[in-house]
Amino acid sequence: MGTGEKAGASKVKVGIIGASGYTGAELLRLLAGHPAAEVCAVTSRVHAGQPVHKVFPGLRKAVDLAFLPTETPESMKGCDVVFTAVPNGVAVRFAPELLKQGARVIDLGADFRFRDPSVYTEWYNLEHPASFLLSEAVYGIPELKGKKIAAARLIGNPGCYPTSVILALAPLLAARAILLEEIIIDAKSGVSGAGHTPAQEFHFPECQENLRAYKVVGHRHTPEIEQEISELAGEKVLVSFTPHLVPMIRGILSTLHLKLRAPAKTGDLLALYREFYAGAYFVRVLGEEELPQTKAVQGTNFCDIGWRVDQRTGRLIVLSAIDNLVKGAAGQAIQNMNLIFGLPEKAGLEMPALWP
Amino acid sequence: MGTGEKAGASKVKVGIIGASGYTGAELLRLLAGHPAAEVCAVTSRVHAGQPVHKVFPGLRKAVDLAFLPTETPESMKGCDVVFTAVPNGVAVRFAPELLKQGARVIDLGADFRFRDPSVYTEWYNLEHPASFLLSEAVYGIPELKGKKIAAARLIGNPGCYPTSVILALAPLLAARAILLEEIIIDAKSGVSGAGHTPAQEFHFPECQENLRAYKVVGHRHTPEIEQEISELAGEKVLVSFTPHLVPMIRGILSTLHLKLRAPAKTGDLLALYREFYAGAYFVRVLGEEELPQTKAVQGTNFCDIGWRVDQRTGRLIVLSAIDNLVKGAAGQAIQNMNLIFGLPEKAGLEMPALWP
Amino acid sequence: MGTGEKAGASKVKVGIIGASGYTGAELLRLLAGHPAAEVCAVTSRVHAGQPVHKVFPGLRKAVDLAFLPTETPESMKGCDVVFTAVPNGVAVRFAPELLKQGARVIDLGADFRFRDPSVYTEWYNLEHPASFLLSEAVYGIPELKGKKIAAARLIGNPGCYPTSVILALAPLLAARAILLEEIIIDAKSGVSGAGHTPAQEFHFPECQENLRAYKVVGHRHTPEIEQEISELAGEKVLVSFTPHLVPMIRGILSTLHLKLRAPAKTGDLLALYREFYAGAYFVRVLGEEELPQTKAVQGTNFCDIGWRVDQRTGRLIVLSAIDNLVKGAAGQAIQNMNLIFGLPEKAGLEMPALWP
Amino acid sequence: MGTGEKAGASKVKVGIIGASGYTGAELLRLLAGHPAAEVCAVTSRVHAGQPVHKVFPGLRKAVDLAFLPTETPESMKGCDVVFTAVPNGVAVRFAPELLKQGARVIDLGADFRFRDPSVYTEWYNLEHPASFLLSEAVYGIPELKGKKIAAARLIGNPGCYPTSVILALAPLLAARAILLEEIIIDAKSGVSGAGHTPAQEFHFPECQENLRAYKVVGHRHTPEIEQEISELAGEKVLVSFTPHLVPMIRGILSTLHLKLRAPAKTGDLLALYREFYAGAYFVRVLGEEELPQTKAVQGTNFCDIGWRVDQRTGRLIVLSAIDNLVKGAAGQAIQNMNLIFGLPEKAGLEMPALWP
Repeated sequence: MGTGEKAGASKVKVGIIGASGYTGAELLRLLAGHPAAEVCAVTSRVHAGQPVHKVFPGLRKAVDLAFLPTETPESMKGCDVVFTAVPNGVAVRFAPELLKQGARVIDLGADFRFRDPSVYTEWYNLEHPASFLLSEAVYGIPELKGKKIAAARLIGNPGCYPTSVILALAPLLAARAILLEEIIIDAKSGVSGAGHTPAQEFHFPECQENLRAYKVVGHRHTPEIEQEISELAGEKVLVSFTPHLVPMIRGILSTLHLKLRAPAKTGDLLALYREFYAGAYFVRVLGEEELPQTKAVQGTNFCDIGWRVDQRTGRLIVLSAIDNLVKGAAGQAIQNMNLIFGLPEKAGLEMPALWP
Repeated sequence: MGTGEKAGASKVKVGIIGASGYTGAELLRLLAGHPAAEVCAVTSRVHAGQPVHKVFPGLRKAVDLAFLPTETPESMKGCDVVFTAVPNGVAVRFAPELLKQGARVIDLGADFRFRDPSVYTEWYNLEHPASFLLSEAVYGIPELKGKKIAAARLIGNPGCYPTSVILALAPLLAARAILLEEIIIDAKSGVSGAGHTPAQEFHFPECQENLRAYKVVGHRHTPEIEQEISELAGEKVLVSFTPHLVPMIRGILSTLHLKLRAPAKTGDLLALYREFYAGAYFVRVLGEEELPQTKAVQGTNFCDIGWRVDQRTGRLIVLSAIDNLVKGAAGQAIQNMNLIFGLPEKAGLEMPALWP
Repeated sequence: MGTGEKAGASKVKVGIIGASGYTGAELLRLLAGHPAAEVCAVTSRVHAGQPVHKVFPGLRKAVDLAFLPTETPESMKGCDVVFTAVPNGVAVRFAPELLKQGARVIDLGADFRFRDPSVYTEWYNLEHPASFLLSEAVYGIPELKGKKIAAARLIGNPGCYPTSVILALAPLLAARAILLEEIIIDAKSGVSGAGHTPAQEFHFPECQENLRAYKVVGHRHTPEIEQEISELAGEKVLVSFTPHLVPMIRGILSTLHLKLRAPAKTGDLLALYREFYAGAYFVRVLGEEELPQTKAVQGTNFCDIGWRVDQRTGRLIVLSAIDNLVKGAAGQAIQNMNLIFGLPEKAGLEMPALWP
Repeated sequence: MGTGEKAGASKVKVGIIGASGYTGAELLRLLAGHPAAEVCAVTSRVHAGQPVHKVFPGLRKAVDLAFLPTETPESMKGCDVVFTAVPNGVAVRFAPELLKQGARVIDLGADFRFRDPSVYTEWYNLEHPASFLLSEAVYGIPELKGKKIAAARLIGNPGCYPTSVILALAPLLAARAILLEEIIIDAKSGVSGAGHTPAQEFHFPECQENLRAYKVVGHRHTPEIEQEISELAGEKVLVSFTPHLVPMIRGILSTLHLKLRAPAKTGDLLALYREFYAGAYFVRVLGEEELPQTKAVQGTNFCDIGWRVDQRTGRLIVLSAIDNLVKGAAGQAIQNMNLIFGLPEKAGLEMPALWP
């Protein structure tokens, strides 16, 4: 577990820049159990010098590292792959040098998710200083871009909401089953999605027993969803995306309100989904008797998908559940790493959900 | 507090049939603080003979009554008003006799919510044995039907989801501001909405830290919403309604995904809502800087409404929050009672929300 | 409800200094429903100028005031009573001037809880600049010091933990039923007890699904408990006090592990408790079939007390439950105000608990 | 992952009788990731015939088994080890036959925890039909009885509360550091400890935001604690044990209120604990700067122990945290299995806690 016993010569050497937050902590949790990778360096400016387990007590004895103070490419020398979990606009400064050092780079922020730098600038209010890298970067959803990922040096790891939405929509778009002008996404997230830093609205007494929407119209995950589903649809698509904050720690449930092009029944879509995700271990297509629920995926890299057709209105409601920190962030990043290094896709990602 | 001290001659005498559940308990909680009403009789077959506070420990010292065993109109003799909080199909058997005894009847189930008995039969799978009463019964949303309610003998008290949805839509329908064929309701409820009876899916370890949709397509509140908004729209309207279960005790947040007929800004709609609800104390119209959240209404009879316009897509997202047991059930029932008996609308309903 | 309708000439005029926190908010919530008091002035340096409901959305429409910026005695001119809910060491600077202005002062902090200023200095690390007032100040537990309170100008309103502990112990101490050298208090609190300010340990994702003790040995409520029970016992008593943080919003459950002087049964103590609290509306003495639970008191001014005797070990386990913000702070403060101004003890404090 | 890929000849073949409950589900979760064991047979009368993942959706794709209907030793033929997770009084009927079949038996109930059958009869109100096995059975706390366990055919797997208490006390008893007549245990558990079956008191709306003690005096884990610590102390010891129910899913925090024989400081005890648990991977002894919290152990087999000395009163407060379903049940059972079959103690038990 992160100590001497797995320091084999053949292990992938991993560095993490910026592990003060929950995404970094989750990378450490998952990599602690990875049979073919080991974390060599981890940085955090906030917690520089501290043992990892002082900040994340759940990692005591599992991770025997201290946070490095210097958040630079140099601190990652010798790493085969570097995960960057830093504020938007920061990874883009490190990536060129890291790539030059020979490392693969998997960025968990938004810096390498957009093919068009002007979209990044519009939604994130930042210039993109390394837009030459955007054509090389791969948007890392393994179920959709496995081959590109395997060959990539640079991954823009998807956002949590987009992951849940894109996986739910992809088979329908591929089959041209839905109207593109009526894609309404009502998404709900647990509070860990808001990050590690305390704030009034995430203060336990005000967050517990409370439910609300936030950033209604204008959430930054909107253009990311639109980019990917436009590619899948073969034409420019706009979506309506409304996120909500739910009083639980982990989990995203996205409810997609869609309109079928032609009449269909709930059961008719089963073959479509099953076939599309035939080889995709981490997508669990639920049948007519079940519906996704976040507890069934907590702590795991699974995405559970289910749906119902409303015969009265011709609408299709699709539901997808993920753990925002795993399939929505660190788990998917490791899945990408596995593909890049030719490791089994499931390596380090096999633990079932806690139930209850 | 429900005991001797307020047994004034002029008080409205209240009976409750079926107070084993949370709706009945909430009636008792609110009526304990009502200045002009007193509970004279309360029944529960399950808890017959037991003091109320043994079943609902929060009512100790506030309610000094025991549950009567006989759930019949006779047990309600002398009551000015009777609330029925019984399974669907049961209130309809009691109502004619209760009315004959001279009592007003406020049913918290679905037996008197539908003007067309065939809709009741279709969605509830029950024949309606007293359909002659349906033409007399008033669907009790005071903000929309105050005058009819004041003159009514029989109230069909609205469902929790419909209350939150109808109040959010009414001003828009009155102003013909939205497309009627695109009304999508994504609703989220706390677990008390599922009632008092334990079940696997509401067992704490499986309900906590879990989020899921349920009864996707086909929830019985759908026809109730459609009946009322069709009336408001002046034509037959279908809606898509998808409920979710959120790990919190109280509260409904309904997110309405709508399409504007003509371009508008978030601020443009403020006057429309404010004017429509000018005299409505219990509707709080939030401005552009705020959004509804369930905690702000917990334990209260308020309905908080807010919205945002998405300029990119022409969509309007409206949010409304209520406490499902208060404005969504017992509080609204008491508001109806107040109107019927000429009491101040706010009587017994003035406590602010617990915060936090 | 805090607006024009109850501005009668005879109402007690209330000022609140420092209502940024949950204690101040709770005073506002409870006073909004008080039939014989009205809040005239409320200050908050942090939220100066903002309407109260912007900070505490649960108070929208119930409280129609804005926070005054100047936190001084002058801002309280004309008030009959001033509640101070400010950091320790601050109330003591305001009190002399407020008293001079003719106001009664009820401090919700620790500045006037101790009769011996050296105890205050030792545990709070502050000099006491107005120790001449300590002999006049009354430790405000109405069930134990009702007469003194009624005559007081200055109240040191008890801490939340001490309230739950002292009420549970008083009858046993009066009857000399327990060994004084074996008083072990294992107390558990909801998170609102930690206050309004966000911090890492109260950040929802780390506080939810987590349980821990804190300030084990040395919590500042220890000397307060010892002062009062020493007075009740007639000799110096030391206690062992261990607080815990429980993932819920409101509520304190104190478990007292005691040793009986002489054998007794659970039922034997019933008469003792019932007699001691015969006239005390807000103490609910539970019988042998029940045990206190925090939900039964949430939002209320009740203190529920129950116990069991362990025949095998001769130990007595007493349990007491309160809402830390009501009987543990704002509710008790209002109860004290009621006594001082000759109002009914229950005025403004009659609402039952939310259940569920 | 419970499927074909690890069906190596050398794997320990595991059977589980009675996997309807959370303990059985947790065995399945942990064994799914065990590198050297595979589950061959699992029974559940309630869920006979159903795939495991229908009952425990978190195990979908991880466990590819269906529940066998026949809960008999015959159904376990060929198993090297059988875990029994059945009601008290049932395992004792299966054990002799299972042992005859050559299987090792690890019972997760109380049937084989007591060396004296009369204690079992007194506290569980059941005759013990196989008391001849009690002398052979080993009380399975690996940190204290590793050698006996390695040689055992039959394990009485400890209760959840006793595990947390005994591990916290053992070093102190071995060093004769505390007074034996003053051992007060105030224990707090998450709701999963109450099991899989719904009941009113575990219904989400009444359990959430609620805290209470239960079975005050007389909880069945008392004699189990007393048996083991009496053995450690070398004389008969009685304890006072008071359990509480905390609104969270997993976790036990036990607070032990003890009295030191001789003065000591918090730091003095560090060497004592560190030495006692020098080789014990799953006990994490915390230093003076930290205290146990349940989140740090959730989902893991760790037991975190910390303490403080109160110089004023001479008392020692020790805190210990475990996950009730892992170190308190299924994890410890697997740890016992590992010892019996000569596997690494950590096998299948290495995942860090979810944080947050």
